[in-house]
Amino acid sequence: MFNNNFQTDILIIGGGPAGIVCAVTARKNNHSKKIVVVRDTPKTVVPCGIPYIFHRLNLVDEDIIPDDVFVKNNIKLIIDKAIKLDSKTKKVFFQSGREIIYDKLVLATGSSPVHIPIPGVDKEGVWFVKKDYTYLKKLRQAVLRSKNIVIIGGGFIGVELADELSNIKNLNISIVEMEERCLSKSFDKEFSQIAEEKLKQNGVKIYTGTKVLEIKGQDRVESVKTEGGKDIPADLVILSIGARPNISLAKDSKMRIGEYKGFWVDEYMRTNIEDIFAIGDCAETRDFITSRHLPVMLSSIATSEARIAGANLYQMRLFRKNKGTLGSFSTEIKGTVLAATGVNEERAKKEGIEVVTGYSESYNHHPQTLPRSELIKLKLIFFKSSGTILGAELAGPESVSEMINILALAIQEGLTISDFDTFQISTHPLLTAAPTVYPIIMAAQSALQKME
Amino acid sequence: MFNNNFQTDILIIGGGPAGIVCAVTARKNNHSKKIVVVRDTPKTVVPCGIPYIFHRLNLVDEDIIPDDVFVKNNIKLIIDKAIKLDSKTKKVFFQSGREIIYDKLVLATGSSPVHIPIPGVDKEGVWFVKKDYTYLKKLRQAVLRSKNIVIIGGGFIGVELADELSNIKNLNISIVEMEERCLSKSFDKEFSQIAEEKLKQNGVKIYTGTKVLEIKGQDRVESVKTEGGKDIPADLVILSIGARPNISLAKDSKMRIGEYKGFWVDEYMRTNIEDIFAIGDCAETRDFITSRHLPVMLSSIATSEARIAGANLYQMRLFRKNKGTLGSFSTEIKGTVLAATGVNEERAKKEGIEVVTGYSESYNHHPQTLPRSELIKLKLIFFKSSGTILGAELAGPESVSEMINILALAIQEGLTISDFDTFQISTHPLLTAAPTVYPIIMAAQSALQKME
Repeated sequence: MFNNNFQTDILIIGGGPAGIVCAVTARKNNHSKKIVVVRDTPKTVVPCGIPYIFHRLNLVDEDIIPDDVFVKNNIKLIIDKAIKLDSKTKKVFFQSGREIIYDKLVLATGSSPVHIPIPGVDKEGVWFVKKDYTYLKKLRQAVLRSKNIVIIGGGFIGVELADELSNIKNLNISIVEMEERCLSKSFDKEFSQIAEEKLKQNGVKIYTGTKVLEIKGQDRVESVKTEGGKDIPADLVILSIGARPNISLAKDSKMRIGEYKGFWVDEYMRTNIEDIFAIGDCAETRDFITSRHLPVMLSSIATSEARIAGANLYQMRLFRKNKGTLGSFSTEIKGTVLAATGVNEERAKKEGIEVVTGYSESYNHHPQTLPRSELIKLKLIFFKSSGTILGAELAGPESVSEMINILALAIQEGLTISDFDTFQISTHPLLTAAPTVYPIIMAAQSALQKME
Repeated sequence: MFNNNFQTDILIIGGGPAGIVCAVTARKNNHSKKIVVVRDTPKTVVPCGIPYIFHRLNLVDEDIIPDDVFVKNNIKLIIDKAIKLDSKTKKVFFQSGREIIYDKLVLATGSSPVHIPIPGVDKEGVWFVKKDYTYLKKLRQAVLRSKNIVIIGGGFIGVELADELSNIKNLNISIVEMEERCLSKSFDKEFSQIAEEKLKQNGVKIYTGTKVLEIKGQDRVESVKTEGGKDIPADLVILSIGARPNISLAKDSKMRIGEYKGFWVDEYMRTNIEDIFAIGDCAETRDFITSRHLPVMLSSIATSEARIAGANLYQMRLFRKNKGTLGSFSTEIKGTVLAATGVNEERAKKEGIEVVTGYSESYNHHPQTLPRSELIKLKLIFFKSSGTILGAELAGPESVSEMINILALAIQEGLTISDFDTFQISTHPLLTAAPTVYPIIMAAQSALQKME
């Protein structure tokens, strides 16, 4: 059916969550179109599962999205690397020499770890968190042979890695973070310090407000030298200081690049060139709260964008009520779940937003004499002038990972404080906080009192 | 400060969750008013915790809402029983002879178990699920002395009781339910049968579509005779066939009583008589979906009504965007959580609503090779003509007890299928389903495909 060079209706470059969901959605909406997905790795790693390949999972192969989704949906999968795009002739050139002509092109090329010019960064024993099956297999082996691991960067991935690796016996883990605290982009201090304390209690050394000067060693890494004069022993260093959109295909085209070096797209994931869409980490979308263009790199956002693009390739079939991209996260550190959506108080203030915050603490079971009762801490951030919700931060047991989605929906729907006060909820003694002290309602009420 | 007969600004009859939350909310909104709560039991039992006093909790005293909330909020608590109301003189008469004159009166008198005229219902060994501290202490002792327990009524309370009691060694538990299945009011068959199967696997005998003819025995109960000719041995019988609003105070007043024998109230919990409010189980509100007047008996609803009444006693301070009462429930049966909000498919059809449903199954962790991965089953019910969400049913791990609140909010905000398709969520490998197969989005998409 397909030759090496051929023509297709829909060509998707990238086989991560964005590419997969876009292909499946395109199939649901276009039963007879030819759909081709091209990816450059033999297997698709579950990206957010990467921190867990070292201990909770036994093999990198346990962190794989199976390819049967392509077969089931009559989607052609090709393993190859796109190297050039000609948008005039609507053709993509590949490493193997293959050329594919498309009718609609979706770029889901993802992102790559940020490299920084620290002296010694090229030494053996310095690793990045790449979404690359073969690379990760080697990294896993190297980690399991190590004694002293230094993680540079205390964002989500750095913190999750530290949490995971601290479960491995006889391994010394350190985090070096330039900012004053870990997880500072998503959480205010009250919440980020919960993560830091949990990690410290479990033996992870955390150096915040600390810049790395040099990665030292002969042939291979031996230590990490920091600004304060510390020299942290290391036989393995992992850099997790962020990621950068993969936009090399834009080179030879007139594709517009955004402020943060991602493909510029509109709310329907259309680039500035007709018939070319971009989704996921490589696309730069508008933030829901601040309206700034940002490349939000979360697989939940990537899949959401994929659904919008996939449904609207040929016709406008899926209306998007909420035009902005809302970042929502959750993670687990030593059994405590931390979750956030929208902006935190610190970021809101930086953006010049006058906010009022509400806070609550409630147990997740009631009466709290019941087994497995744990505290839920919630902070809500509201726009002071209108009472509109802007953000939320949560810490507690596993169920807060869905509670954050209540708040994500609330932001998407533009709820205000009084809407929360009359929010009708479901509660149960064995499962949730008591209706008398339900976290969201309590935090909203505490904000309301500050406004009066 | 208070004499036996006295005058108060705010008088609340009933000290359950509704009474407590109303009093606290009234205090927040009225710093200098006199507030009095009168209840007729020495301690307030957590109502939804009652099924768990037999095994998970060690004492009825572990299922108590502490009274310190009254002291902290400068609320006077009196233990007495209201027996008469004169709305002309604005006076309530109590069993002890006490008389209290009010400015604003809130009736939070709750509900009592339904009694049915089965022959033998008055025998020793027949019990009801009363929210009465002293009664429950006796019931607990009687249960722990029993061998064969028959529960009449397979609604939430009956099923939760059976689940709890089946944890006790050497106890034979049976449920007799008149309807074709347990939990039929909240769940469609796909979900109610999960509960039934779990209970059966744990030794609970379930007789559905079965009417009780007689409770047999000499002095005390010996067996339960059913329509099919069964004679189920029983040394203890618990009736859990529903509850009836406590409205005896309406007798001598012109208070309007609703269709289902609860106090008639408007959306702000005002009865037809000036300055008298009713909240919780005793009040009859309008259903969010069907607009029918129903006494919805859930403490989550009771506390929501309490907040509305408590804030609006003197002034309209809390606007209620959603005028209807939305019933949302969750429960746990043998480690599986079942949750529902709005109407199920069966009830929607009975109401003459043409619906389209969506269904999804996803694991709660991703990749599902991660520890503690469990299946989440979700059914969404939409209004066919508009695509508006009407209801949802869930089965899965503990986190679905908050996922149901996402859907409860969605109903309250009038979301439609396409809103779900573009719903931006938070996911995490250790905590939630994958973003590629997030249950709510998947179920919405499956409904969308049926509509096309």
